[in-house]
Amino acid sequence: MMTHAPNRENIQQAHELIAPFIHRTPIMTSSALNAISGAELYFKCENLQKIGAFKARGALNAVLSLPGQDRVNGIATHSSGNHAQAIAWAAAKVGTKAFIVMPDNSPLVKIKAVEGYGAEITFCKNTPEERESTVLQIVERTGATFIHPFNNYEVITGQATVAKELIEDSDPALDVIVAPVGGGGLLSGTALSARYFSPGTKVYAAEPEGAADAVLSFRNGRIEKAPYVNTIADGLLTYLGDKTFPIIHGHVADVLTVSDQEIIDAMRLLWERMKLVVEPSGAVSLAMVLKNKALFEGKRIGIVISGGNVDLGRLPF
Amino acid sequence: MMTHAPNRENIQQAHELIAPFIHRTPIMTSSALNAISGAELYFKCENLQKIGAFKARGALNAVLSLPGQDRVNGIATHSSGNHAQAIAWAAAKVGTKAFIVMPDNSPLVKIKAVEGYGAEITFCKNTPEERESTVLQIVERTGATFIHPFNNYEVITGQATVAKELIEDSDPALDVIVAPVGGGGLLSGTALSARYFSPGTKVYAAEPEGAADAVLSFRNGRIEKAPYVNTIADGLLTYLGDKTFPIIHGHVADVLTVSDQEIIDAMRLLWERMKLVVEPSGAVSLAMVLKNKALFEGKRIGIVISGGNVDLGRLPF
Repeated sequence: MMTHAPNRENIQQAHELIAPFIHRTPIMTSSALNAISGAELYFKCENLQKIGAFKARGALNAVLSLPGQDRVNGIATHSSGNHAQAIAWAAAKVGTKAFIVMPDNSPLVKIKAVEGYGAEITFCKNTPEERESTVLQIVERTGATFIHPFNNYEVITGQATVAKELIEDSDPALDVIVAPVGGGGLLSGTALSARYFSPGTKVYAAEPEGAADAVLSFRNGRIEKAPYVNTIADGLLTYLGDKTFPIIHGHVADVLTVSDQEIIDAMRLLWERMKLVVEPSGAVSLAMVLKNKALFEGKRIGIVISGGNVDLGRLPF
Repeated sequence: MMTHAPNRENIQQAHELIAPFIHRTPIMTSSALNAISGAELYFKCENLQKIGAFKARGALNAVLSLPGQDRVNGIATHSSGNHAQAIAWAAAKVGTKAFIVMPDNSPLVKIKAVEGYGAEITFCKNTPEERESTVLQIVERTGATFIHPFNNYEVITGQATVAKELIEDSDPALDVIVAPVGGGGLLSGTALSARYFSPGTKVYAAEPEGAADAVLSFRNGRIEKAPYVNTIADGLLTYLGDKTFPIIHGHVADVLTVSDQEIIDAMRLLWERMKLVVEPSGAVSLAMVLKNKALFEGKRIGIVISGGNVDLGRLPF
């Protein structure tokens, strides 16, 4: 296990390790969205990644980085979202078992997706305490290795490869990269890749108003919880961890928030104008750029579309 | 105006003419859909084309091929669908006016899209006679040039560039290309490009059961109308023309039909598994391949996703 924030070589090695299994996702542009934003937008399409989200990168890097004896009894985690699918997929890739703890009110579509990768699901009540105690019991019973969804340096290192690819495939360099923030795995990895591979590129974070913990943490200089949690961006509900927070605090230019209506409007633009299925959490970065036009006017902006896993039967439009 | 079906050089020249203005759309793959189909599927993503559909190619080639004096008074057409947007866009590209006749029950989203390209819209009742007489009046009044949505050799030549790109970007050669058929502009162009640029590649057509004119025409050797018209694939309602039918009859391997439920199921797979917004007409080819697994098993199949313009407020799932 890594005991320090990833350095440049860690990220390069992780990228070589996972590259044979993941998509180098395309970077797409839209003249319509450039006109609307007044900027040059470069969308890194992680909704087209394996399992439909960037989480495949961090989960696979964490699983592949485990010594053989730590893989043999399987991998365990708790998640109702993309990390669950990512761990199930990554475990199958290396031929070991995945034990996933999911809340008993998880959408059927997500349960089916995790089952589809051959994982064993244990249901529990939807409280943080229940989820953690259930996964601990599984770890004790099976000897499986627990992989946290974001507060894990191997996971952060894997997520850093999103921005590494975006930087490598952009010429001239981007002025800005915008990533959404939940627990901060993607954002901290993005900040480190910008620092190592494109030091002139600023990293901004976009966060839902209804899960506004990162903006508070960033300004107050310590991990804070959100004043309330109520947002359609269900991938961004968690607060920062002790591994992600210091990286974010040290290397992110600012954290800016958007309302759910702004997220839905941005999501609709991505669907209608770019023909991309994007989940609410994946539209938060565009929403933030459109809300702050003066800040970003005329700039070359990389926007991370983090995922596309959405229940088509329950769309907000 | 071309007076013969396009030859190889016509298609090559059209491609050079329109290439600076259109997207060379990506070819995407999905391990999930390969597993479901039992074949190797290569999706040519014309939903990511300008105006959200392949129609941009044919319309632009037709407009750019006009001598200057035939452009100066504008371009006229009748369409409630993608050809309307394509002509409006193409006319704007060359700096001339577009006059679009649309049925007075057209969805607001399509009216707005056509207006967004600066076209002048004339509404009429939704019958073929009304549409044709209205556009004739406009041509007489304005001196605009009428461009038919499919029964026009310049349009066919432009649509042929979809398969030309698909063939050029595939190595080794595809065994099969599948395209949807409405009036036959895309299908006849696809058949000609396969013949010229990849003679070993068979072209199949996919058609909705609820607009089954092409299958009848193909088998009976003459242009037939559909026994009834009732399908969600609203881009494929028309019957073949005297320019498209002979090409299709001479160079297509077969025309196979699918039900609306099969179209909706295929559309849902494209949205959920590939994160692509695809309109019903654009999912017909995949639906046909999934319905005829034995015919296509193990083959390398190019599938044309023809468009992605869909009203998000009126989805079939």
